[in-house]
Amino acid sequence: MKIPPIHVDCARLSAELEELARFSDAEPPAVTRVLFTESDLKARAFLKGLFREAGLIVREDAAGNLFARWPGARPDEPAVATGSHVDAIPFSGRYDGTVGVLGALEAFRVLKAAGWSPQRSLELIVFTSEEPTRFGIGCLGSRLLSGVLDSAAAAALRDADGCPFEAVRRQAGCTGSLDSVRLPVGHYAAFVELHIEQGPLLEREQVPIGVVTAIAAPAALRVRLQGEGGHAGAVLMPQRKDALCAAAEIILAVEEAARSSGSLDTVATTGVCRVHPGAINGIPSEVMLEIDVRDIDLGTRDRIVERIRQAAEPPASRRGVGLQMELLYADPPARANEAVVMAVTDACSQLGLPCQRMISRAYHDALFMARLYPMGMIFIPCKDGISHRPDEYSSPEAIRRGVEVLALTLARLAESPPA
Amino acid sequence: MKIPPIHVDCARLSAELEELARFSDAEPPAVTRVLFTESDLKARAFLKGLFREAGLIVREDAAGNLFARWPGARPDEPAVATGSHVDAIPFSGRYDGTVGVLGALEAFRVLKAAGWSPQRSLELIVFTSEEPTRFGIGCLGSRLLSGVLDSAAAAALRDADGCPFEAVRRQAGCTGSLDSVRLPVGHYAAFVELHIEQGPLLEREQVPIGVVTAIAAPAALRVRLQGEGGHAGAVLMPQRKDALCAAAEIILAVEEAARSSGSLDTVATTGVCRVHPGAINGIPSEVMLEIDVRDIDLGTRDRIVERIRQAAEPPASRRGVGLQMELLYADPPARANEAVVMAVTDACSQLGLPCQRMISRAYHDALFMARLYPMGMIFIPCKDGISHRPDEYSSPEAIRRGVEVLALTLARLAESPPA
Repeated sequence: MKIPPIHVDCARLSAELEELARFSDAEPPAVTRVLFTESDLKARAFLKGLFREAGLIVREDAAGNLFARWPGARPDEPAVATGSHVDAIPFSGRYDGTVGVLGALEAFRVLKAAGWSPQRSLELIVFTSEEPTRFGIGCLGSRLLSGVLDSAAAAALRDADGCPFEAVRRQAGCTGSLDSVRLPVGHYAAFVELHIEQGPLLEREQVPIGVVTAIAAPAALRVRLQGEGGHAGAVLMPQRKDALCAAAEIILAVEEAARSSGSLDTVATTGVCRVHPGAINGIPSEVMLEIDVRDIDLGTRDRIVERIRQAAEPPASRRGVGLQMELLYADPPARANEAVVMAVTDACSQLGLPCQRMISRAYHDALFMARLYPMGMIFIPCKDGISHRPDEYSSPEAIRRGVEVLALTLARLAESPPA
Repeated sequence: MKIPPIHVDCARLSAELEELARFSDAEPPAVTRVLFTESDLKARAFLKGLFREAGLIVREDAAGNLFARWPGARPDEPAVATGSHVDAIPFSGRYDGTVGVLGALEAFRVLKAAGWSPQRSLELIVFTSEEPTRFGIGCLGSRLLSGVLDSAAAAALRDADGCPFEAVRRQAGCTGSLDSVRLPVGHYAAFVELHIEQGPLLEREQVPIGVVTAIAAPAALRVRLQGEGGHAGAVLMPQRKDALCAAAEIILAVEEAARSSGSLDTVATTGVCRVHPGAINGIPSEVMLEIDVRDIDLGTRDRIVERIRQAAEPPASRRGVGLQMELLYADPPARANEAVVMAVTDACSQLGLPCQRMISRAYHDALFMARLYPMGMIFIPCKDGISHRPDEYSSPEAIRRGVEVLALTLARLAESPPA
């Protein structure tokens, strides 16, 4: 396969990552960029400008997924897709997702600059709301694209202010029916996502590239506790139905369930705890918890979810506190396509870069794209394995290598896609 | 003592309570009215209008305490004061504080309508921020008036957005030095506050009037936990320093400390639990708790505070989570002045109303006014003892009786104040 030498412009890419990080609702270096807030809309506008400048054809679907196409010589054949997300959870960092978006743009540019042009089209996707911050469910865009999430269910999702996704997306200028978002089988020849590892493995092993073979299975529970409020000075202890005390027992049960699963791979986290009324002299009457449970093994994951469900009941009933549990999602793990894995591995060989097969503990839009298309992921190291924090960091050198591998992988897949 | 028959206008008073409840940031019947928010400022403007309409002389100090004076025949002698607050914790009710403000106004009006006029002046005070919602400390206005809180310390208090009280009060139009707020000893001849009981005793005993003899001693702690954030999928359980799991242990320790105090009277409540970053897929890196501890007995109260301090350390250190504890306040209990108690009791006798001596489990601005002036409180029943909730309720009949007792008490004190 004749793929010319490519030259990533590190300074340009770093400057663009820097500029993107400024569209944020948090003080630097922290980044907060929640779906369809002003910061998110500005970031999207900035990206569209860059895509058009690079000569790409830009389209936005009814859910706000952004597509930037480099048409190939055979535009009717299924394109090869890449991409990631640019939304960021509150007070997180600047590399999660953004490296896969701006890195893909740089990959397109360096291929073009090297005089290469694609047979099949290449398409860069910026997925809507990979993070679950606003609507409590992650990968909103890729769930809709892949048909995992029904358009009516998506429309009815509500944010913390009670605004439905249907209204929020329309306000953001995303019109048209949500039914039109779903992509047909065969629409893409392959999908490959570049991402920071969000774990410590590559750095520890001093390997520059991870080739993802599977994505761990995430599940999420929402727990609503309905106790009885009252004046913190006037209601004596035996009369209380304190929703936060019940929540505290559940938070500890979540931790214990993961710790005692028998597998080091099980993780469970209570990341959200909202207390009503939330005043120092008011007994908490309502608490909402959101719990994330993951394991590489679907059976173990589901057992832990069930154990958490069971552990939540005794504290609530003993305290006379009402308990509602809702399974927000429980997705199966995804396997990468072996031909895509080989394309990544071959690209690494061509560049003389060591690589390592690994699983992804974090989930990504690739999890849902894998439902319809041959999927692969390219991981690069991040400092101390830190992610979802302001000090998240991948070096320009690490990013450059990732972009080179992505560029050569896309070129390979565009010339000979998976069967 | 010749005090003429008085006639409370229940319809007028109910309508004014109803109108005041509409200045709120919550859906009715809930009331949210936090210091110097638009709702609070509108409520203050509404009250000033009513006070002026009743012929009172209105003054506002640098901390936003409102004073409405009915000048007596001997205006140079210390006035008799009454009053309460109109700020409301999030999602609370419409009677806490407001009954003592609008009820006092009604008491002035009915005395005037009955042809009575005071020797000593009567003064109605609307205290700034009795509730600790915005600045984490209750009775801000009366602490400043009584000199319990230093003006420099008050100026430096910060709300959840980091805005100092100094800036917030200036934005609300309260200018002048905070040093000018403190009242001199001897400024008032007495202070008496009308309030709903916020507990179940009067309703259970079917007694219309409670005569407060002491106010229980409140203390408050703020706990800051500094753990380590990270991606909820990528950081394995043994590596975690989850601030929310540490907080959960502390919340349960707070409850246990109160339950095992040996006294039924001890109450301890974690009413505030703020989680950072607060995303389902982010490990909680920081948690802030606010804890309220009360007992009638100062020694017991202080022992429980100490026990909570000690119980918080092991969970934090075992988990590698940083712990900071700050005593926000720890006030001594207050005793009512016996002459004021007798004035209330005599007013009840004159009206033929049974009354009962009792202690106040909730604290009030009267706690701080008692530092400088002879203090008393009049309690009326509230339904099921419920307070700080949207379903807080006192009947128009219960309120009418409270206003009658307040009116006659004020008249008695204005003619013969405590020695």
